[in-house]
Amino acid sequence: MNTHETRAAHIMRRIQELATISEDTQGITRTFGTPAFVAGRDLVQSWMQAAGLAVRVDSIGNLRVRLTSKNLTAKTFVLASHIDTVVNAGKFDGPLGVLLGLDMLEQLMQQQVQLPFHLELIAFSDEEGVRYHTTYLGSKVVTGAFDQSLLQRRDAKGITLAEAITTMGGNVEQLASDAIPAADWLGYFEVHIEQGPVLWERDIPVAVVTAIAGQQRVEVTFQGMAGHAGTVPMDMRQDALAGAAEFVLAVEQFGLAHKENIVATVGKLDVRNAASNVIPGEVTCSLDLRSADATRLASAYDALYATTEGIVRSRNLVLRWELIQYTAPITCDTALNKKLAQAITESGHEVVSLVSGAGHDAVPISVVSPATMMFVRCFKGISHNPLENVEERDLAATLQVVDRFLSSLISS
Amino acid sequence: MNTHETRAAHIMRRIQELATISEDTQGITRTFGTPAFVAGRDLVQSWMQAAGLAVRVDSIGNLRVRLTSKNLTAKTFVLASHIDTVVNAGKFDGPLGVLLGLDMLEQLMQQQVQLPFHLELIAFSDEEGVRYHTTYLGSKVVTGAFDQSLLQRRDAKGITLAEAITTMGGNVEQLASDAIPAADWLGYFEVHIEQGPVLWERDIPVAVVTAIAGQQRVEVTFQGMAGHAGTVPMDMRQDALAGAAEFVLAVEQFGLAHKENIVATVGKLDVRNAASNVIPGEVTCSLDLRSADATRLASAYDALYATTEGIVRSRNLVLRWELIQYTAPITCDTALNKKLAQAITESGHEVVSLVSGAGHDAVPISVVSPATMMFVRCFKGISHNPLENVEERDLAATLQVVDRFLSSLISS
Repeated sequence: MNTHETRAAHIMRRIQELATISEDTQGITRTFGTPAFVAGRDLVQSWMQAAGLAVRVDSIGNLRVRLTSKNLTAKTFVLASHIDTVVNAGKFDGPLGVLLGLDMLEQLMQQQVQLPFHLELIAFSDEEGVRYHTTYLGSKVVTGAFDQSLLQRRDAKGITLAEAITTMGGNVEQLASDAIPAADWLGYFEVHIEQGPVLWERDIPVAVVTAIAGQQRVEVTFQGMAGHAGTVPMDMRQDALAGAAEFVLAVEQFGLAHKENIVATVGKLDVRNAASNVIPGEVTCSLDLRSADATRLASAYDALYATTEGIVRSRNLVLRWELIQYTAPITCDTALNKKLAQAITESGHEVVSLVSGAGHDAVPISVVSPATMMFVRCFKGISHNPLENVEERDLAATLQVVDRFLSSLISS
Repeated sequence: MNTHETRAAHIMRRIQELATISEDTQGITRTFGTPAFVAGRDLVQSWMQAAGLAVRVDSIGNLRVRLTSKNLTAKTFVLASHIDTVVNAGKFDGPLGVLLGLDMLEQLMQQQVQLPFHLELIAFSDEEGVRYHTTYLGSKVVTGAFDQSLLQRRDAKGITLAEAITTMGGNVEQLASDAIPAADWLGYFEVHIEQGPVLWERDIPVAVVTAIAGQQRVEVTFQGMAGHAGTVPMDMRQDALAGAAEFVLAVEQFGLAHKENIVATVGKLDVRNAASNVIPGEVTCSLDLRSADATRLASAYDALYATTEGIVRSRNLVLRWELIQYTAPITCDTALNKKLAQAITESGHEVVSLVSGAGHDAVPISVVSPATMMFVRCFKGISHNPLENVEERDLAATLQVVDRFLSSLISS
């Protein structure tokens, strides 16, 4: 039997090799349905086949393999993550969970374990939603929640989602039949890098995810009056950027004051027709608000709206405030988390509980199945970036925890 | 003899007609040396010729006409403004001074006035500096201060300034010989829209310009650490945008606290690799500082640098601070301004004195000649914008003042 260290090294080599496949030569980019995406998926498929697994590519392009139970009434437990990436991504966000899952199936086959449930490993084709500005295309097909109206949506080149699916060899007529029926779900488990600095700072390899934060995304526009930077006196200005700056600081202060429950971020800020010698007349910002607590999320939204209204009033600006996206928070399954915490304790680590501030496929899957996730320590919490990294010793520790967790599921 | 109202209406029609010539169909754009620029200049040249004036196009593309004095030792008094524009410009910034000057020459010819000095009207070919990121190409040739090294500079399409001059029919060998020798300058006078709201608010048609502000332009970069907006806790962030926002407000507060002597503006702010779900890792801002007082300008610069250093220190960010441009303030000629104030008073208006926050050709010309300017009331102070406007009654009042001013120069 292979050691956790040997298995970790093997997974690392696969992650490394998959990362060499990209739409661009500089970074790592494999967005849904592109030739680079398909080439990456083919590589993962070849590893699944080499392990002796029968691979099914479903109609949205997910890779799916199963270890079936001899129990005729068995339900399905799903291990999964995704193999699409953001633009200029890291190597681990997605592939870690898929290739760790493949390693698990390889171990179970080698050990000829009799399963009391079907164990399905899925490599989702679209979690990041970069190409069609959607979320969770892959997992929504698997839960039966795919929105057919998205098929007519077009990417930046004008290609519809339906065309992209067909080009990939998918069949848009078959999307509904690729769902795992709600009654058949036993549970869902995903291993993913933390994408935050908590485990890095505390030097602990893994954490239980207790909830996935809900999110409000707002587009906020401040309209003032453009003017010549040299000629409009300071006290006759309606400077949209100064208003936006006050907003950025108010968002930061609100987040700090509620840091136990909220994160609040202004990530984008655009000055319209900006020039160094022009007083900004219009500025548009993004606001990203997240909380695991739906009530707190709603009251944060209301409080920041009121603050922003006060800023524009006092500065004689005009406000446009548009809610772009709302995702409700979800709670991870407590029974699964109890087993997961036990596996972590037995592996000799402190049990750290984290709320995921990032969205994951567990969000749509929680509608039909008990679902949870485990986070793995990553370098300084850096993600969506070529600097994204997981240390091999942390991956070995993760394998040990997941081995114990799956054993406890199988024996229960 | 035409009334000031008739003359104002005539000048307005010319300004309107010139504004129909543009590089783009939407707005008004005639940057140095483009076909639209040349077409606009040809139109102004045709009006000069129709007035019976012998037009010289000098080697940098300035239009120059002269009423010569019979006095053999006469010096030259220059009336001027520019006929190039910014991108998406207004109709009046530049053309107003040129076409008002042409009207003045037409009146003097009609009245067969004997001049004690040569009177030269110049339509400068480049004041805005949009195409080559330079300033005052036209007037620097006329003062003999043209920097030959600029000839190799390239525009956005890779065309050198030397090539652009040659294409326009200019001769780069002749640039030095187009200067008015320093000893020959009697004075310089330019009429220009205010580009600020003071005259508009006070409903006074014209103002004496006492100084042209000096300017410091700085590029300020805040470097923090990019991170996922959902996963990095509020108190573990190094948010470059929050630092930049503090800077924007500090600049505004400093400007307000010193509003009698300073204007301070952040006109540009760019978030690098901005996304709504990414904590900004790097933000670059512009800082534009202006004052008519060189000492105050220098101390404002030092104070804002110290404030900015404090912001980055307290936020654990890294600062890059680069001085991009420095222009010293100039004082307008007090003797000319005394005559100008007298002409304004005699025309029945209150004498308003303004500092020009914008740069003008009077800056390089003040090195070789007594120079001053008169500002004309414009709609809400809006400039560099299609909304730029001058009311005909204010233009008529301006003509009355300039008539009196020129008479006083001629008779003195």
